[in-house]
Parts: sequence; structure tokens; C-alpha cells
Amino acid sequence: MSAGETASEASIAAAAAAWRHETLDDALAKCPERSAQFVTAGGAPVDRLYLPAEPAAGDYVERLGFPGQYPFTRGVQPTMYRGRLWTMRQYAGFATAEESNRRYRYLLEQGSTGLSVAFDLPTQIGYDSDSPEAYGEVGRVGVAVDSLADMEALFDSIPLDKVSTSMTINATSAILLAMYIAVAERQGVPPAKLTGTLQNDILKEYIARGTYRFPPGPSLRLTSDIFAYCTQHVPKFNTISISGYHIREAGSTAAQEVGFTLADAVCYVETALNAGLKIDEFAPRLAFFFAAHTDLFEEAAKFRAARRLYARLMRDRFQARDPRSWMLRFHTQTGGVTLTAQQPDNNVVRVTLQALAAVLGGTQSLHTNGKDEALALPTEETATLALRTQQVIACESGAASTIDPLGGSYYVEQLTDRIEREAASYIAAIDDMGGMVAAIEQGYPQREIERSAYAFNRSIDDGVRQIVGVNCFQSANEPAPPLFRFDEVAARGQLARVQAVRASRDSSAVAAALAAVDAAARSRDNLMPSILAAVRVYATVGEICQILKESFGEYNEAFHS
Amino acid sequence: MSAGETASEASIAAAAAAWRHETLDDALAKCPERSAQFVTAGGAPVDRLYLPAEPAAGDYVERLGFPGQYPFTRGVQPTMYRGRLWTMRQYAGFATAEESNRRYRYLLEQGSTGLSVAFDLPTQIGYDSDSPEAYGEVGRVGVAVDSLADMEALFDSIPLDKVSTSMTINATSAILLAMYIAVAERQGVPPAKLTGTLQNDILKEYIARGTYRFPPGPSLRLTSDIFAYCTQHVPKFNTISISGYHIREAGSTAAQEVGFTLADAVCYVETALNAGLKIDEFAPRLAFFFAAHTDLFEEAAKFRAARRLYARLMRDRFQARDPRSWMLRFHTQTGGVTLTAQQPDNNVVRVTLQALAAVLGGTQSLHTNGKDEALALPTEETATLALRTQQVIACESGAASTIDPLGGSYYVEQLTDRIEREAASYIAAIDDMGGMVAAIEQGYPQREIERSAYAFNRSIDDGVRQIVGVNCFQSANEPAPPLFRFDEVAARGQLARVQAVRASRDSSAVAAALAAVDAAARSRDNLMPSILAAVRVYATVGEICQILKESFGEYNEAFHS
Repeated sequence: MSAGETASEASIAAAAAAWRHETLDDALAKCPERSAQFVTAGGAPVDRLYLPAEPAAGDYVERLGFPGQYPFTRGVQPTMYRGRLWTMRQYAGFATAEESNRRYRYLLEQGSTGLSVAFDLPTQIGYDSDSPEAYGEVGRVGVAVDSLADMEALFDSIPLDKVSTSMTINATSAILLAMYIAVAERQGVPPAKLTGTLQNDILKEYIARGTYRFPPGPSLRLTSDIFAYCTQHVPKFNTISISGYHIREAGSTAAQEVGFTLADAVCYVETALNAGLKIDEFAPRLAFFFAAHTDLFEEAAKFRAARRLYARLMRDRFQARDPRSWMLRFHTQTGGVTLTAQQPDNNVVRVTLQALAAVLGGTQSLHTNGKDEALALPTEETATLALRTQQVIACESGAASTIDPLGGSYYVEQLTDRIEREAASYIAAIDDMGGMVAAIEQGYPQREIERSAYAFNRSIDDGVRQIVGVNCFQSANEPAPPLFRFDEVAARGQLARVQAVRASRDSSAVAAALAAVDAAARSRDNLMPSILAAVRVYATVGEICQILKESFGEYNEAFHS
Repeated sequence: MSAGETASEASIAAAAAAWRHETLDDALAKCPERSAQFVTAGGAPVDRLYLPAEPAAGDYVERLGFPGQYPFTRGVQPTMYRGRLWTMRQYAGFATAEESNRRYRYLLEQGSTGLSVAFDLPTQIGYDSDSPEAYGEVGRVGVAVDSLADMEALFDSIPLDKVSTSMTINATSAILLAMYIAVAERQGVPPAKLTGTLQNDILKEYIARGTYRFPPGPSLRLTSDIFAYCTQHVPKFNTISISGYHIREAGSTAAQEVGFTLADAVCYVETALNAGLKIDEFAPRLAFFFAAHTDLFEEAAKFRAARRLYARLMRDRFQARDPRSWMLRFHTQTGGVTLTAQQPDNNVVRVTLQALAAVLGGTQSLHTNGKDEALALPTEETATLALRTQQVIACESGAASTIDPLGGSYYVEQLTDRIEREAASYIAAIDDMGGMVAAIEQGYPQREIERSAYAFNRSIDDGVRQIVGVNCFQSANEPAPPLFRFDEVAARGQLARVQAVRASRDSSAVAAALAAVDAAARSRDNLMPSILAAVRVYATVGEICQILKESFGEYNEAFHS
């Protein structure tokens, strides 16, 4: 320590040198930054990372640390967006596989860097398009996938070794993952090369989203089976995206979103450990999915808090030793519930602020909502503008030029500490109840969310909280924007299509494959190989789920949306 | 100091207590905050001001200090937007006074909180609409005002004691201010009640904008005359808005924008002091006008740096003693040059980021550009969305809930320091040349700006800097948006109108009034009283300027746009 240097200055300098040596140099060697020099619009150089210049808090290293190092408060990668921008991944899915395929290819041409598949409700819950349970819902909120034939059409001319794909699928995730692997096989792409994310988070379905089929026990077994199978065969695929998004959409606060989502993570980790998996084998492929709402600093702080809290959980509670097991990597979607049907152009402003919050919070990938998504699925025009929103932030705002630009802000650091503290107390409460499955059965997270949603809505009704165009600055006459039109005829065509597939396939092969799924379900064998074999011979989602239901049972008879 | 507390912690705590006692309590007593409690979207309480929690820099108080106190880095008001939101002031002006008046009243109905008048070029340079010099420019970039008759129509049914008005007028500012005072008189509003801002910044016209008429010497005399007159008669009106906006539009960097604008301020202050005014009499009514571009953190830091540097200049260099003389208060407009004609919807995203930068930087008022302003004047729809952009930020982003939310950010504090340092070195360079008038005559600021503009444009041409829709992510077929259509017929009507005014007024009263203006111009008398008398009898802008030109001369014969 040189004369005049305080102890905390010296420890930051020493820690910074160690970070450079242990982490940064390696990362730069593997992947150089996008530019030799980053500058502001005014041409001033922008450093990679800004540190306290003043004699700083002794706990800087412990609380903030360095990007790419525990506790990851400032980001999971040592160069963050200087190395590579976040993945621009727009969620989309239309009535038919062909129409969805056209939108994906359009988005990729416009500079989208990842795909994100929306499935319709029957596919999500495991009913074929021609089943009575699917009536009126085929292709409505996403693409209908009944058999491998649909999945082949969905990814036609999209090389699966070149694109990363996220699939919002939970109760039936094993089947859709199997179909994705089978399509890749037919493209000549081995499973080991596949990248992307399976949502596969059933707990939040019970808490908030409602598209469950089987009870928690067998559902968690499917989750573990996917973890185990992918560890061996699909090692680059994120096997779960533990989702706060729907918890938030249901009305939770930001702190509840973090608390309940990480409590779900605790449950998945414990399930996998109980199934005999090793923490550092599966934990590096756990991913997360959060919402970004309009309160800019709270949202950015939320992501930082989640990262720090998760790192502590994984290292200290679960004794993970691989630093990749400590990293909370997450996808973000701007908040659907924050969009207003009134004055839909204002939603462009909201989505800009929300996307900025996600970027300032260090997201790994991002979906920006179309301005018309409070009213319908986005049109091609509004989906394009949503993507452009990300591109303007990436190219023009300067937010991608330095790591964690908000770091050190007195406000943001205090928000980060507070959200971490509140989320940790939710996890402790759920631990006391015996874990998340028990908490769900007692209705605890559901009630807490409902309470927050009620308080938020009342604050709007009372005018304490102002929403532009809703309870202030209303307009008298608004022209109706051109909306996406749902294609009823195409949806009806899907019924004929699944029936044609059933008529043309090798039915004895299907019967044998389904019998093998049944046998696996009744044993302790991993279900993935038999499901994969079944989808290869065009067994349908509905048929496989029917087989599983016979041994698993159903959680609830109702059809949830 | 209690045990365990360090010296810097204790000094921050003591300073915070002094701030509360000396500044905050008074402010709260005069104007309570908008709400008893501010909360985030998640319902968490948001404090007024966040301070370092760690043993902090010994120089925190000197560098950042407290809002409403020297050096104002964190804002000029002790409660900032918790007390009152910024003024939402949309710049507008159309061919005729009647059409402009309709837009002003529409904007006020939509929640705009101030007016901002755009004048056409002939009015700005001092030619009547029927003069040969005005041909083809009448009413094109703003409203044509020839005589008091137009000004009366412009503010018809708008009570001037209730609304604050900004007027973008420089070479002819004395005449337009006189007309505003005369309209107020006819409404029964005394000048002492008028609030608003006169741009009245002639130096930046020579540097960047080009709408000058008279040489610098007499122009600066007009400026001093306005300062002196308003100090006595219009004490609540900002007598000048020293403008970096046009310097920035011409291609300067953020640091140059601050440096040249504050160097202009130095020149105005010295001129007024040389004319015998006392610093604390006129300095509290000096205001500023800056641009907000898309590089979010640099822009926010720019405003913080400008505030701190100006406070030091006014206190230390000019020995001002009234704290109001130290405060840099400013209007912001989002950057016109940053808007793209390609994919105009992307401009909504840019304007959102720019408006956010202005708010995070602590602006006192804000104009947000319409998304179509790269192509035409904004339509009613696009002007409304621009205003809604401000309202969403104000109501929904949380940025108005705490003071200086970026304060302490390692990145933003270093940017702030750097911009202050660079701007100070420009001021020193201009001092060395003998001041701003000499520097302009040598072409120094013009050359510096040109150099920056060239470097910026080359970085776009080279693809080093990406602008969405311009040099990346282009679209093939863009539908043309509906644009504002210039009303040629109305513009032509303005020629008949000024001729009708000349025919119907008391011509001997006009002749006498113009002779009095001439006598004042040739003496050292304040010009404002004789100009006010002349506009009251409907002498025109062109006539008064013609008289002034005879003694002042002209700076340049060319008609600049």
C-alpha cells in the first residue's frame, strides 16, 4: 500500500488486479470485445468498468464485486455487453406452424438473434387440436403443435445449429423438447450442438399461470428427467427457465417476483439432488426469466439483487463449487400487464423504459412487447418496432458500452439491498412451511401475490398511482389501430392436419412407442428416451399425455388459461 | 461523532442536517411535496435523497453537495420533482397566429404546462411578411408576427397570468417581448405577473444558428437593455435563455455544448456588468437551454456538470452572493438532429431515452420532439405522443420520485467530472482569446464544432457508430407516414393582413413612435420603453428593425436559415 492510500482503496485495487488476472484476461482471450475502443456519442472513451474513486466502503468487494465473479451483482460476464450484446429474442407463435415459421424468418432477417416459440393452450396442456378439450383454443395464443410434422414445418429452413430457441412450454416440455431434438436430427444437427432454453417451470404454473396438467410430484419428476437427460445428451441447452414473469404478471411486486422465483429454484435444486444428480452437473444449465416493468431503477435493482441472492444460495446453501452454478442468467420480457389498451402508442414509451431497465440490470436476452399486445398478438409492423427498440438501445443509448452503469448509484444500491433482503425473507418463510410445494398447497404465494395485486389496482383506482391514458390524460376519441387478425380458417385446418398425420403414420410403431412410454412412466427410468422414440414415429402430444396421465393422474380437471 | 463513525461519515451527516435546517425545511414550508409518501411500483418507500452509506469520499460535499445548495450538482431545487414536475413545454408555431393559437390551446388541454412559440424566419430576423426578404419563408418554420395584431391573435383566450411562455426569438427579441407585454396589458395583466423565457441569445446565432441581423456590439446592447428593463418591470421573466441547443444541433459534442454555452454566459454577464448592472440583480433571471441526445448517461452527466461549473463561475469569478445567481436553470429539447427520416417510429424510442436523460439531469422544462420532425412540423397526433412521452416518464418511470437518482453512480460521477473539466478548458481558451466576441470573430467555436461534426458523421459513414435504420437494420419498403402539410394559402394571407394593419392604424402615431426608437438607438437610453410604445400603436417588426439598422448596421447581408 502506497503512502496516502487507505485500506479500502488498496483492497479494491488488489481485488481488481486479481479479477483481471483470474477472470478478465481469460474471457478476453476467448472472445475479444466488439471494439478496440468504446466511446460516448461525444467521442469520450468509456471504460469497461467504473470503480469507486473515493476511499470506498470496505464492503464493496463483498456486496458489488466484479462482473463475472461472485456475487455477480454487476453482471455474470466479465465484459458484459462490450463482449456480446444480449440476445434479441422476440416471442411469437401463430395459429399454424407455417405462419409462425414465416414470422421467425422475418424476425431473423430484421436482426433478431434468437427465436422464442409461443404454443397454443392445448399444446401447453397436452391435448391434440381435434380433442374436445381444445375446442376454440387451437392456435389462439400461439402455434398448435400436435406431432413432429408440425415441428418440422415450424423450423423449416431454420438451421438449428445456428439459432438459439426458447420454448415456452411447461407441463408438456419433455415432449416438445423431444420433438425439437428430432427435428434437429432430421437436419443432421446432433443434440450436443443445440442451444436455447426450455421454460419447463411447472411450479409457477401452480402459483400463477395455470397451464399445469399433472400433480406436482410427477411434474417434478419430469423436470429431473429432463435435467438428467440433457446433462448427458443436450449439454448446451438451458433445461429450465425458472420464471418470475408470470408471477409478476399476476400482480406480484418486484421483490416477490425475486423471492418466489428463487424459492422455486430451491425446490428444483432439491428435487434434482434427491434424484441423485450432482449440483455442479445440472446447475450451470438453470436459467431464469423475469419481467421488466416501468419503474426503471427498481427494475434494474431487482435484477442485480436476484443475481447476488442466487449466488449466495447456490454457493453457501447448496455448496456448489463451479462458479457457473452460482450465476443467475436470465431472459427478460417487458411487462404485458403494463401495456394499456388506451393510447397504444404510449406503450412504445413504456417498452423503451422497460427494455432499458432490463439492459441496465444485465439481462442475457430480451423480448420487447409490441405496442398492440394489450389488444391482440403483434402485427408484423409492431413486432418490428419492438425489435427496433432493442436495437436503438443497443446501438445508440450507450447503455451497452460499460458494465453496470448504475453501479454505485446511492439510490440503486439501496434498492438492490432492499430487494435482496425482502426476497430472502420470502425464501425463509417458504423454507419454514416445508418448501415450495407445501407453500403452494397452503396457498401462500398465491395469497401474497393477490394481496399485492389488489393494493396496486386500488392505488390506480384511487388515483394515487397515475397511468397515462387510463386514469389521467385520457383522450376522447381514439382511432382504432390496425390489429393482428386471428386466422380461424387456419386453426380449423389444424384439426384435419393432425387427423391426416394419424392416418398416414405407422400405427403399430406408435402403439409400441406409447407402450414404452407407459412402462417408463411406471418405472423409475428416465422418460426422455421413450418420449423421443414416440415423437419420432409421430405419436401426438395428446396421445403421450394421455398415457402419462394414466400413471400420473391430473392436478385439476379445469382447462386453465 | 459516535464510536465507530469515520470522519467523512460524520461530516456528511452534519452537512445533511445543516441542509435540512437551512434549505429543505423552508422549501417544504413554502411548497409541500406532491405526495406525503413516494413509493416505487412495488410499493417500497422512496426517500427524497440517497447518500453514501459507506464511509464516503471526503469531497462528497464539495463535489456533489445537496440539491438546492451550491454547487447544485444534484439539482437546483431542494425537493426537485417531488415538489413540482418539470414544465412540459412543447415548441410550436404555424403559418398563422390563429392556427398556432389553436395548437396552443389543444396542448394545454392535453396537459402541457407551458407554451413555447416558434416564429418564422422573417420575424426572427426582422422583416415584415410582405417584404422581398421574406419571400417564400412566411410562416414556414413558425408563426409570422408582423404587428401587435398578430400577437393578440396568437394569445387569444390564453390568460397570460396563468401560463408561462417561452419565445424563441433573438435578433428581434426586444420587439417580441414588447409585444408580449402589450398583449398582457390588454388582458389586464401587469408585466410584473408575466412568467416565461425569452431566448434572446444572440451569440449562439453567430456561432451556430445564423438568425442574426445586427453586429455583436449593438446586439449585446439590446441584451443589456432587456436585462435592465426586466429587472425593473418584468421581474419574474427569464430575460435570456443561453442556448447550447443550436451549438449541439450544429454538431458539437456534449462537452463543447457546455463549454461554449457557459462562455456565452460569461460574455453576457460581463456585458451587463460593463453596462453598470449589479450581478445579483440580473443573474437570477439568466436561464439556459440545452439539447438532450440519446447517449443517456453522458447527457445526464452533462447537465450535472453544467450546473456545477456554472455555480463555481458565478460565485468565484463573478462574486455573486445571491444563491439564485449561482443556479443554472435550464430548458431541454430532445435533439432534432438525432431523429431519422428512415423508420420514423424509432424516433419515439430515441425521444424517450433523450427525455429520460433530461429528467435524470434535472431539467426545469422540456420539449419532446414529434417522431416526424425529421420530415416536417409535427402533426397533432405526433405532438400529442411527444407530450405523452413526458407524462409516462413523469407518472410511471419512478424517475421523478427521488432526487438525482444517478448520483453516486461511479460511471456517471466520472462522466460529470470529465465534462466539467473539458468545458472549463474551453472557457479558459476563449478567455485567452479575449472573450467570446473575439473568439467568434476568429472563427474558433465554429471551427471546433465543425471538427466534431465531421468526426461524428465520419464515424457513421465508416459504420463505427451505428444508427438504426440509417446504417444498420435498414428496411426495404417503408410506408410514408402522414405528414403535417404547410398551409401556403394561409401564409399568403399574412401579406394582406400586415398591409391591412398598416392601412388602418394611426400613421402619425407610428411615425412619432419610430422616431422615438431612432432617438433612443442613437443615445445610450434603454431601448425598451420606446419599442414598447411603438408596438402599442402597431408599428411592425420590419419597421422597427429598419430604424434600428440605420444606426446599428447589419452583420451580414445574407438571409440565413
